[in-house]
Amino acid sequence: MTMTTAAGCVIPSVLPLRRQYVDEACVRLDALTKPRGSLGRLEELAKRLFAMRCGKTPLTVTPALLFTVAADHGVAAQGVSPWPQSVSRQMVRNFLHGGAAVNALCRASGMDLRIVDAGCAGGPFEPHDMLVDRRLGEGTADMSQGPAMTRELCQKALASGVELAKEAACQGYVCLGAGEMGIANSTAAAAVYCALLRCEPEDIVGPGAGACAAMVRRKAAMVRRALRVNAQSVRDGDAVGVLAAVGGFEIAVMCGIMLGAASRSLPVLVDGYISTAAFVAARVLCPDVSGYAVLSHLSAEPGHRIITDRLCAAEPPSSLPLLQLDMRLGEGTGAAVAYHLLRCAVAIFNDMATMRSAGFSDRQ
Amino acid sequence: MTMTTAAGCVIPSVLPLRRQYVDEACVRLDALTKPRGSLGRLEELAKRLFAMRCGKTPLTVTPALLFTVAADHGVAAQGVSPWPQSVSRQMVRNFLHGGAAVNALCRASGMDLRIVDAGCAGGPFEPHDMLVDRRLGEGTADMSQGPAMTRELCQKALASGVELAKEAACQGYVCLGAGEMGIANSTAAAAVYCALLRCEPEDIVGPGAGACAAMVRRKAAMVRRALRVNAQSVRDGDAVGVLAAVGGFEIAVMCGIMLGAASRSLPVLVDGYISTAAFVAARVLCPDVSGYAVLSHLSAEPGHRIITDRLCAAEPPSSLPLLQLDMRLGEGTGAAVAYHLLRCAVAIFNDMATMRSAGFSDRQ
Repeated sequence: MTMTTAAGCVIPSVLPLRRQYVDEACVRLDALTKPRGSLGRLEELAKRLFAMRCGKTPLTVTPALLFTVAADHGVAAQGVSPWPQSVSRQMVRNFLHGGAAVNALCRASGMDLRIVDAGCAGGPFEPHDMLVDRRLGEGTADMSQGPAMTRELCQKALASGVELAKEAACQGYVCLGAGEMGIANSTAAAAVYCALLRCEPEDIVGPGAGACAAMVRRKAAMVRRALRVNAQSVRDGDAVGVLAAVGGFEIAVMCGIMLGAASRSLPVLVDGYISTAAFVAARVLCPDVSGYAVLSHLSAEPGHRIITDRLCAAEPPSSLPLLQLDMRLGEGTGAAVAYHLLRCAVAIFNDMATMRSAGFSDRQ
Repeated sequence: MTMTTAAGCVIPSVLPLRRQYVDEACVRLDALTKPRGSLGRLEELAKRLFAMRCGKTPLTVTPALLFTVAADHGVAAQGVSPWPQSVSRQMVRNFLHGGAAVNALCRASGMDLRIVDAGCAGGPFEPHDMLVDRRLGEGTADMSQGPAMTRELCQKALASGVELAKEAACQGYVCLGAGEMGIANSTAAAAVYCALLRCEPEDIVGPGAGACAAMVRRKAAMVRRALRVNAQSVRDGDAVGVLAAVGGFEIAVMCGIMLGAASRSLPVLVDGYISTAAFVAARVLCPDVSGYAVLSHLSAEPGHRIITDRLCAAEPPSSLPLLQLDMRLGEGTGAAVAYHLLRCAVAIFNDMATMRSAGFSDRQ
């Protein structure tokens, strides 16, 4: 089932999490052999997973699939990254060879991994089992000169993401994750935050993959320019317009993946700084997506704390990132690490004895 | 090899981590296909694991064994816990039946689990594969009336812990963890902190397994009384004397496990609030144990932050707890969850491609 928003974009419908199931999960958790609430955020995750499944037990998050979505950005030409644009392409090859951090961490965590080419410069890659071709072009246009992409292309990117999630659900995956690769995409993500959450570029822009202080200032100036050049789209404030004007192919596809996962009532792990921009857009398009999204970690990118604090103020505690490990790599690495916490939440909910079954004394 | 401290206690010798290996690990991590330092604390863990092994690769933390050490506390008679003392024994049975949180989390994380009876009230348990009998009595004496145990018994407890770690190493375990169960042991842990780190009971005592505000005040008063009653041992300030006077059997055994693990150059996961008291004692006995200890998580018990902040001030960043999930259960549950982060650290160090092997462009 889909619905058409006022923005004219077809997005899937998402069932809001129901309080009744959260309460039911709470009763069950409180009956287990532990002081009430003593497993903290693992209990909160278990409650949400129970509600996502409308009370269907046992809970499960296995098998799980992480999408690492890659694309290039025209704004890279403005010198906003210490890495040349060709690194996006090299990293995709590295993913396909299994040598990147996200490969190692998916293996360690037991997540499957698929690499989505949403539009890396240099043409299509050779076919590969792990690769999904959803190319939308040779990278976006330079957002500091005009819109990064057309509205139509952005809608196509969103629809691709929704489809990817639905296909994964049909293949039996019960937990998804979204991460990314794209030189200069921390500049695009910052612009999306500024446009949708009304932040100042100087507060939100950071070193990304290693920019020096002068380059960070340049990034902030480019974000400011992109917001000015695309002022009409930004002022209108609809998420599709913003993603088209100052986003990126991979950001829009991830946004679609999050919406698609939520529409299939599946949990979706949001990786880090860039992925959270896709989540911010998704919750503008469909606020109920928040129930299904799990923020994996607080990035070392300083602006991420400002953004997640804002999200938490609106939706505590589900929008509080699970981990804080000073990671700032992207790719989906935070999602791969945090996936283990979902497995832990499932384990305590499904496998613990109750006070009654274990024949416990009551509290004094 | 062992050495005898000024305190008259035989403790094993521990090889300090050598800067040379940390630097070597750093060079290797910086050559991998990622921006330098972008995996944050996972990189820090990998460096420490490399140094623990004196540079022997591949790194490994599998198989891993968690010890959950259980014992009773005489001070429970003072009404410092909302749970009756019999719950320690019931929880041990729950562990042996596989129904506790630590069982579920060890299965989810891939750690083996052994339950050590260091002295639960009610006599020995029936033999069980998972159970290790290291009983030191029927629980400690009430520390608010006199010493919890004799110095000799404390030395025996420490030696038991050291032996347990060494036996585990001989059985092929390459990573250990220490957690606990014992009604009233958050009161004992608080007293150990106050004695060894010169804290005020009111700052360090918290609700533990669910004490109300009045009970928390009572706990603090009991800690203050225990410190006064045992003023001589506390003033002398040696860790064995303090553990004997105001500690517990399980705290001393865990302290021994940490020393034993470090003496075999193995990483040891320190669970939460109570386990960290064992670690604080261990680093007084042997400061180099810090190189091998991994603080699993920041407990929801408020005093834990004060303690870990103190430890961090002395040894950043290795004494910063890895996780912060509002957990406050003990048993080793935090260690079981955090073990996954060690596996992640190993995975990135062992399995990632280098910039050179992947044929990467240099930074601009």
